[in-house]
Amino acid sequence: MTLQQVLKPDIQELVANRDFASLRLALADWTPQELADLIEALEPPEDVIVFRLLPRDLAADTFEYLDTETQKRLVNALIQEKERLVNLLNDLSPDDRTSLFEELPGHVTQRLLNMLSPEERQVAVMLLGYPEDSIGRLMTTDYVAIRPEWTVQQAIEHIRKHGKDSETFDVVYVVDRSWRLLDDLRVRELLLAEPSTLIADLMDERFVALRAADDQEVAVAEFLEHDRVALPVTDSRGVLIGIVTVDDVLDVAQEEATEDIHKLGGTEALDAPYLDTPLLSLVSKRARWLVALFLGEMLTASAMGYFEDEIARAVVLALFVPLIISSGGNSGSQAATLIIRAMAVGEISLRDWWHVMRREVFSGLLLGGILGAIGFVRVSVWHAMFGFYGTHWLLIGLTVALSLVGVVMWGTLSGSMLPFVMRKLGADPATSSTPFVATLVDVTGLIIYFSVAAAILSGSVL
Amino acid sequence: MTLQQVLKPDIQELVANRDFASLRLALADWTPQELADLIEALEPPEDVIVFRLLPRDLAADTFEYLDTETQKRLVNALIQEKERLVNLLNDLSPDDRTSLFEELPGHVTQRLLNMLSPEERQVAVMLLGYPEDSIGRLMTTDYVAIRPEWTVQQAIEHIRKHGKDSETFDVVYVVDRSWRLLDDLRVRELLLAEPSTLIADLMDERFVALRAADDQEVAVAEFLEHDRVALPVTDSRGVLIGIVTVDDVLDVAQEEATEDIHKLGGTEALDAPYLDTPLLSLVSKRARWLVALFLGEMLTASAMGYFEDEIARAVVLALFVPLIISSGGNSGSQAATLIIRAMAVGEISLRDWWHVMRREVFSGLLLGGILGAIGFVRVSVWHAMFGFYGTHWLLIGLTVALSLVGVVMWGTLSGSMLPFVMRKLGADPATSSTPFVATLVDVTGLIIYFSVAAAILSGSVL
Repeated sequence: MTLQQVLKPDIQELVANRDFASLRLALADWTPQELADLIEALEPPEDVIVFRLLPRDLAADTFEYLDTETQKRLVNALIQEKERLVNLLNDLSPDDRTSLFEELPGHVTQRLLNMLSPEERQVAVMLLGYPEDSIGRLMTTDYVAIRPEWTVQQAIEHIRKHGKDSETFDVVYVVDRSWRLLDDLRVRELLLAEPSTLIADLMDERFVALRAADDQEVAVAEFLEHDRVALPVTDSRGVLIGIVTVDDVLDVAQEEATEDIHKLGGTEALDAPYLDTPLLSLVSKRARWLVALFLGEMLTASAMGYFEDEIARAVVLALFVPLIISSGGNSGSQAATLIIRAMAVGEISLRDWWHVMRREVFSGLLLGGILGAIGFVRVSVWHAMFGFYGTHWLLIGLTVALSLVGVVMWGTLSGSMLPFVMRKLGADPATSSTPFVATLVDVTGLIIYFSVAAAILSGSVL
Repeated sequence: MTLQQVLKPDIQELVANRDFASLRLALADWTPQELADLIEALEPPEDVIVFRLLPRDLAADTFEYLDTETQKRLVNALIQEKERLVNLLNDLSPDDRTSLFEELPGHVTQRLLNMLSPEERQVAVMLLGYPEDSIGRLMTTDYVAIRPEWTVQQAIEHIRKHGKDSETFDVVYVVDRSWRLLDDLRVRELLLAEPSTLIADLMDERFVALRAADDQEVAVAEFLEHDRVALPVTDSRGVLIGIVTVDDVLDVAQEEATEDIHKLGGTEALDAPYLDTPLLSLVSKRARWLVALFLGEMLTASAMGYFEDEIARAVVLALFVPLIISSGGNSGSQAATLIIRAMAVGEISLRDWWHVMRREVFSGLLLGGILGAIGFVRVSVWHAMFGFYGTHWLLIGLTVALSLVGVVMWGTLSGSMLPFVMRKLGADPATSSTPFVATLVDVTGLIIYFSVAAAILSGSVL
């Protein structure tokens, strides 16, 4: 009786109780040889679970100790037990998932991916430990890999044999024995070379590769920078596990822009095209934000209520309320939109906040000054033409002008800083949508307006 | 003395006076043979101008009548006189440019492009008659064309010879004698075929091609649909003149999304990244829209002024003004954003307006109903708690609720229909930005609110 057979019942019990943390701890001290024996002795899905719980390096070593037959069986079990494993992973909290299940060793990933159909792959990538919106979820395996020690002739024969069904482009990847990515070569380079040339002699070892765990936004940025049509994807050790093609990245870029635009418009992002979204889901996605904004905007009624006496004494004050608060909202929308988009395309990062703030203070002053001047002219002209604002028209004009400077300034500042706050809090900056900023600025705008009015008009109109 | 020599001075005079319209009219009756003789007799830049003024078909026929030497001379003159021609074209209004200068015949385009360096091409595409933001401006000529009557062996030799410097992908294009696009073939297909096979036997004549005069948005949509890395570009007759690669299209997609987002936020699109835009240009791009919106929003002060008596009699009405008009603005923003983005990605076209309208009427009613109900509850609760709204609180609650239904309904409708109006008028739908919709809805929202108030409250509060 071997060590493993003695322990088998314990391990089965830990698996049954889903006590993955203890199991992982218990297994960490075993040697790769012992683990290989244990895995051979276990039945699916226990063998797969034990394997997936191993720290990454240990898993890689253990995999090497398995004989080819068992390696195949394990990979097959990973596929067959896929759904059970996915359910199991779904039950765990994301934190547990990340701490317990590390990235699968590149070797195994690569074998696994090659055995799956494209449809199966959609589900399986989750097993690899790559989070949603990571590059790993975009990978395909329709690439051809060659070895540096081959001749051009051998490589071309290999491409003839394995590249026929491949839907991808005419770039092949040079890998070493452990499938580490060494270079990329264009098929045409092979075509143009002497058949007896060694692949190693064609290599310049200059290539750009993506990391599977990185966010898909990184892929968009890399493709924008390097003007390539496909880029290889490696695991964290540089092992080639797939490729990403630019047409998929174009989809990602479009979807992300759509999502941002929807959020900026003050609605939850739709999951489907507008016309395909069921009416009730369309309404509910909009209603949630609309109601939230409405509840926020209710504060304006409270703020106005607070100044009810002033309004009763000088109804003229009420007339300018929409004009003044909307100017704050508009300037806030502008600032928020510019900053959010600049963040989305990577032009601005968190540490630029101070630089942005200085620019926006100045912009806000200037814009507020322009609108304030126009507002003052409006009051003067209306007064001259219709004698509308009584004897204190000059003070009223001054109140409107100064309030506009203050409100536009405040709108600009909050619109530009809110995206930074959102990002700092780990939220999507696009959530500080234009209606959100407008609502925020409406309430504070009223307070600014009536405070300015109280200061300037008390003793005369008020 | 030939006909042409007699007329030469006249033509030179018309060119000198830039009377292109008369010149174009005068030349339209000439035969291609006569025109060819005339062009040979003229000096640059007159020869080029005369050639560019010919209607497209006549230009194509005339070009055929020129001997090879003169063809070369003309194309060279097109290149050498490039800057003078571009300046001349820039002087014309865009309308004149389009009506006077048609697309260059595919033949000439293709020769011209092949003779230019990539830098020169940037300027020269303007000469071809393709408007800014057209696919023609994205074209490169780094492709290899082959003939259907060649063998695979011949084709591969041709690729070896001409494809070496080409920066593009391993797709070659099959064209007939007049360079009309017949098919696309992957280099790998050639690799896998018997060397003696005829290209014609490999062709399936299924291919996707872009039109040079189409908008770049079309290219984005085609690439999204077909998942390709490069697409051939033809002129309006199907003559291959270049290719567009997906990496350039990715740039276009990102830039267009940025532009739309900026416009949606109520500012002119920035031409450079936020941090690289000089402060004064940043302010001026925002100020223009902000001032326009401010002038529009001034109507709210007029509308409020119109209801000044009502407000004086019932100050409580003023308290709900910001709440009600902002709800209209927010629902309008949502609708406009959803429709504008759906238009930008091609999900919705002009003829969907009726379908969208029906959906939005229903959405508006539902959303208005929800907010109206909340608004009514707000008034009731505040009244019960603070006795805030006097004996007529029920009527006030009803006024607020009904106004909200009307305003949200109106906001949703105008937000969703305005992008259609914009597109119908030939403007960018994104111009009906969220602040623009909000301003529009603010003014009408006030009128709706005070009208509802007058109807419900007259005799009691009013």
